[in-house]
Amino acid sequence: MEIGFIGLGAMGAPIASNLLASGHQLRVYNRSPERTEPLRAAGATVVASPAVAAHSAEVVFTMVADDAALQSVTFGDMGIVAGAQPGALHISMSTISVDSARRLAARHREAGLGFVSATVFGRPDSAAQRKLFVMAAGAEDHLKLALPLLQQVGQSVGVVGSDPWQANLVKLIGNFMLTALVETLGEACAVAGKADIDPMRLVELLTTTVFNAPPYRIYGPAIAAQRFQPPGFALPLGQKDNRLMLAAAEALGVPMPVASLVHDRFLAVRARGFGAAHDLSALAFEALANAGVARLV
Amino acid sequence: MEIGFIGLGAMGAPIASNLLASGHQLRVYNRSPERTEPLRAAGATVVASPAVAAHSAEVVFTMVADDAALQSVTFGDMGIVAGAQPGALHISMSTISVDSARRLAARHREAGLGFVSATVFGRPDSAAQRKLFVMAAGAEDHLKLALPLLQQVGQSVGVVGSDPWQANLVKLIGNFMLTALVETLGEACAVAGKADIDPMRLVELLTTTVFNAPPYRIYGPAIAAQRFQPPGFALPLGQKDNRLMLAAAEALGVPMPVASLVHDRFLAVRARGFGAAHDLSALAFEALANAGVARLV
Amino acid sequence: MEIGFIGLGAMGAPIASNLLASGHQLRVYNRSPERTEPLRAAGATVVASPAVAAHSAEVVFTMVADDAALQSVTFGDMGIVAGAQPGALHISMSTISVDSARRLAARHREAGLGFVSATVFGRPDSAAQRKLFVMAAGAEDHLKLALPLLQQVGQSVGVVGSDPWQANLVKLIGNFMLTALVETLGEACAVAGKADIDPMRLVELLTTTVFNAPPYRIYGPAIAAQRFQPPGFALPLGQKDNRLMLAAAEALGVPMPVASLVHDRFLAVRARGFGAAHDLSALAFEALANAGVARLV
Amino acid sequence: MEIGFIGLGAMGAPIASNLLASGHQLRVYNRSPERTEPLRAAGATVVASPAVAAHSAEVVFTMVADDAALQSVTFGDMGIVAGAQPGALHISMSTISVDSARRLAARHREAGLGFVSATVFGRPDSAAQRKLFVMAAGAEDHLKLALPLLQQVGQSVGVVGSDPWQANLVKLIGNFMLTALVETLGEACAVAGKADIDPMRLVELLTTTVFNAPPYRIYGPAIAAQRFQPPGFALPLGQKDNRLMLAAAEALGVPMPVASLVHDRFLAVRARGFGAAHDLSALAFEALANAGVARLV
Repeated sequence: MEIGFIGLGAMGAPIASNLLASGHQLRVYNRSPERTEPLRAAGATVVASPAVAAHSAEVVFTMVADDAALQSVTFGDMGIVAGAQPGALHISMSTISVDSARRLAARHREAGLGFVSATVFGRPDSAAQRKLFVMAAGAEDHLKLALPLLQQVGQSVGVVGSDPWQANLVKLIGNFMLTALVETLGEACAVAGKADIDPMRLVELLTTTVFNAPPYRIYGPAIAAQRFQPPGFALPLGQKDNRLMLAAAEALGVPMPVASLVHDRFLAVRARGFGAAHDLSALAFEALANAGVARLV
Repeated sequence: MEIGFIGLGAMGAPIASNLLASGHQLRVYNRSPERTEPLRAAGATVVASPAVAAHSAEVVFTMVADDAALQSVTFGDMGIVAGAQPGALHISMSTISVDSARRLAARHREAGLGFVSATVFGRPDSAAQRKLFVMAAGAEDHLKLALPLLQQVGQSVGVVGSDPWQANLVKLIGNFMLTALVETLGEACAVAGKADIDPMRLVELLTTTVFNAPPYRIYGPAIAAQRFQPPGFALPLGQKDNRLMLAAAEALGVPMPVASLVHDRFLAVRARGFGAAHDLSALAFEALANAGVARLV
Repeated sequence: MEIGFIGLGAMGAPIASNLLASGHQLRVYNRSPERTEPLRAAGATVVASPAVAAHSAEVVFTMVADDAALQSVTFGDMGIVAGAQPGALHISMSTISVDSARRLAARHREAGLGFVSATVFGRPDSAAQRKLFVMAAGAEDHLKLALPLLQQVGQSVGVVGSDPWQANLVKLIGNFMLTALVETLGEACAVAGKADIDPMRLVELLTTTVFNAPPYRIYGPAIAAQRFQPPGFALPLGQKDNRLMLAAAEALGVPMPVASLVHDRFLAVRARGFGAAHDLSALAFEALANAGVARLV
Repeated sequence: MEIGFIGLGAMGAPIASNLLASGHQLRVYNRSPERTEPLRAAGATVVASPAVAAHSAEVVFTMVADDAALQSVTFGDMGIVAGAQPGALHISMSTISVDSARRLAARHREAGLGFVSATVFGRPDSAAQRKLFVMAAGAEDHLKLALPLLQQVGQSVGVVGSDPWQANLVKLIGNFMLTALVETLGEACAVAGKADIDPMRLVELLTTTVFNAPPYRIYGPAIAAQRFQPPGFALPLGQKDNRLMLAAAEALGVPMPVASLVHDRFLAVRARGFGAAHDLSALAFEALANAGVARLV
């Protein structure tokens, strides 16, 4: 299939590679062109704008940093909507706001294009190994086209519903649950540290038994070791998602006290100087610091 | 081996049954004698006091409701310490305070008895299936005697350290993590409910993929369905453990904001009338109610 | 002095009346014209647009509901900027976002107009009695013109600084402190209620002694009596200000856990059905309800 | 009147001095005898035990640090109960737990002695100036004896109810409200600091207008200046009272999220090394530190 792929960051690059390896023809676009080289070497065509990437494509994927980036590659003279042929399908994998997703779906519909939100759970190494968990939402005929492709990039594809924004909301909920888990592990390790129990031993005991889901096994040792670099899921991206979660919850009229607590933790840990060079696990630094067991950084 | 077993509640009864089925001779004691019948039928000797249960035993297990119950079966004329022969080992499986565990260990040492804390994770059905996760702590020679027995009642036995109270602290931390998870699921389902996403679909999507640890899979559907009865882990017991966690954390000088939030949730849900007839998952009722999506009960 | 006055709501109307009574000539504008009658009767000229209100005025006051309302009366063909003569001064009394205030100041500067933020503390009856506390910020020469007028509408005028937005931030901080106080009183009355101490007696004892500031004396009895109507400061306006406070704090990188808690309380109390017909004091309903002492409404 | 007075700390000493100055005969006892000198010099009789202080007294006052200290001066061979003549009245001014107050009242009743709880609001300088606010509770005939004496040490005496513990609960509620106010001021000053508004200017603007109650005027400038020494109300005593408030609230079934937040703040600020040498206002350090505007100490 002819596929356009826009956004070759830490997540987009391995997903695009996997689509290419599955036999599709890819036209790829990335804002900073140096990241396109590995794809070009593997056989993709590198193009100069999202519009050109979309030009003859049946499906265009986007995996970009945030709402603003998605707006900018989608609209305008050089954007996907301007370049796409009638009936083409845009599969948006970025973590964006529920509001943006609603508006994007409407704008595509007006332009005679399809739109599916297909958000993913997993870090870059999972993406490389086609181990992502994909959550997709969209109209039935759009999903019919999207699902086989999505199955080529993830280990499972769950269908959330028929409105694209629903997949974005589930993604935000999932990321909220991740941050809740990081904060919880931070408090647990703080107690262990103060009680002269090695936090790594605590984490090992709990995450190999009751709490054996991947996020516990990934974040637990990082927090126990206070090893917050390099970033797998960069702290500011996690903070952005918390903001989107709280905005969606407020619009829906749902109080989320754990998300509010995490919001305050993000602000505090950022005020300490943690940032793009740090992983989401650094959120747990506050719980450790407040108990006096954080190591100076 | 000759074993005394005290406390045949929802957790104690299946554990005792499994020890019996493994070929040990059991003398069992329970405060309310009617619960002893199934064990007697299966070959255990039912006795009239903890002292008698301990009398000729190499090892005495206790699995009772709280600190006070453990004190009462351990001390006094009819207690374990009074009845046990020198060198016998007391394996305490109850979820008790760190402070109590410290004092119990000291008292046993003075009395020439061994003491091991072996706390367990799992609900009654896991106990019946020998699927408990056991966390044990105690002196090396006591553990040498305890571990083979514990392996007969659980699927894994982790050694926390050489001080019995350490196993009790790990248990409290684990239960704290459970309550954090329940609250998190409550907030997640509240958002879904307000967004016209079926909470059960949300839970299914997340707990079969990223969040696939047993507690998510057990509590998620219960919370999504707002099905808080019958109690697997009774709400007031969870509240007691939260209290013990906060007391231990305060003594150690560790702030635990998520545990504090959960503490306030327990009080609110109890003020609504939830109690011993409800499961720990009812903790999530507050998050649902605050969003206006709780069903009247 | 010739004065334009835009916005004759619960706060704007008494302030405008006082300016009129102080001998100024007023041209007043209000979106819903029926609210202009009392002013017309007292001698003000009622006009059909903000532009006309501003036309020959030396100073234009605005006191409107929110950022959007202020934008709409300020800009556009019928707005203040379009109608005002060069060098006129806009005194903005509305509670708006820090961001809006920054942008408004810049736009007025570009248009050759003066801009002062003069936010007020006090409820409608205080406004009527010229008992408002005014917080003003702006350039020195603008303040020179504004302060004498502001002294005619309030009992004191504090100068916050030379940037108008600073007065808006102080207003948001003050309203945050109000909500913190309401929540605190709610928790206090919940304890009293559960302890069979009459909450009204508690409030009387504390607010006539240590806690004798006006907000305690205003909100305390309302909360003790659970009398949340009529609205003095309408609940949704308080919620809006909480949102603006959190947005300003987030932009500045400041975690505000009490403001976050209040944010969640607003969402919960709104989900119960409290709204524009209720006073800010209804925020305390949640604390009372969570203890089981709220009266059904 | 013959009065026994036990406990000559920062609060007890000026209260005792004032009773002496009002013409009563005082027998005073203090654990560390050096603090008795000023009273002896002023005409009081210094005695060697609470029992002797109580011996011929019609009324015995106690003002000691905590529950344990009050138990120790009240009971035992050398205690008040042992020394007092039948019908004597014990006026307990210490901030103690509701539970202790209940038990003390019962024990005095059994011993044929009267018991009144008369808690006080104010710092040592207020005590010296007879400016304390007193909250009293007890049986009518006991209050009849107590009130005239209490009016000699405070500017007002409020009667809470007929059960002594009610005065203790009101004291705990009042101190809870103080800590809520300190936290609130901390968050407010953190915002100001980050916005380049001088926190001292903010505090001056708000505490001379809307928030003009004494605690705002006392704690506001201290927090704005980050001047946490010397202790007026020592941090660990405030922490103790928070613990007693939460214990009373838990027993009553009342969630107090602001008190829970303050509880966590106390633990965090203690973990930083703040302690008995610091004032309660240091509680606000956490809000400032989390925004990155705390000065290193």
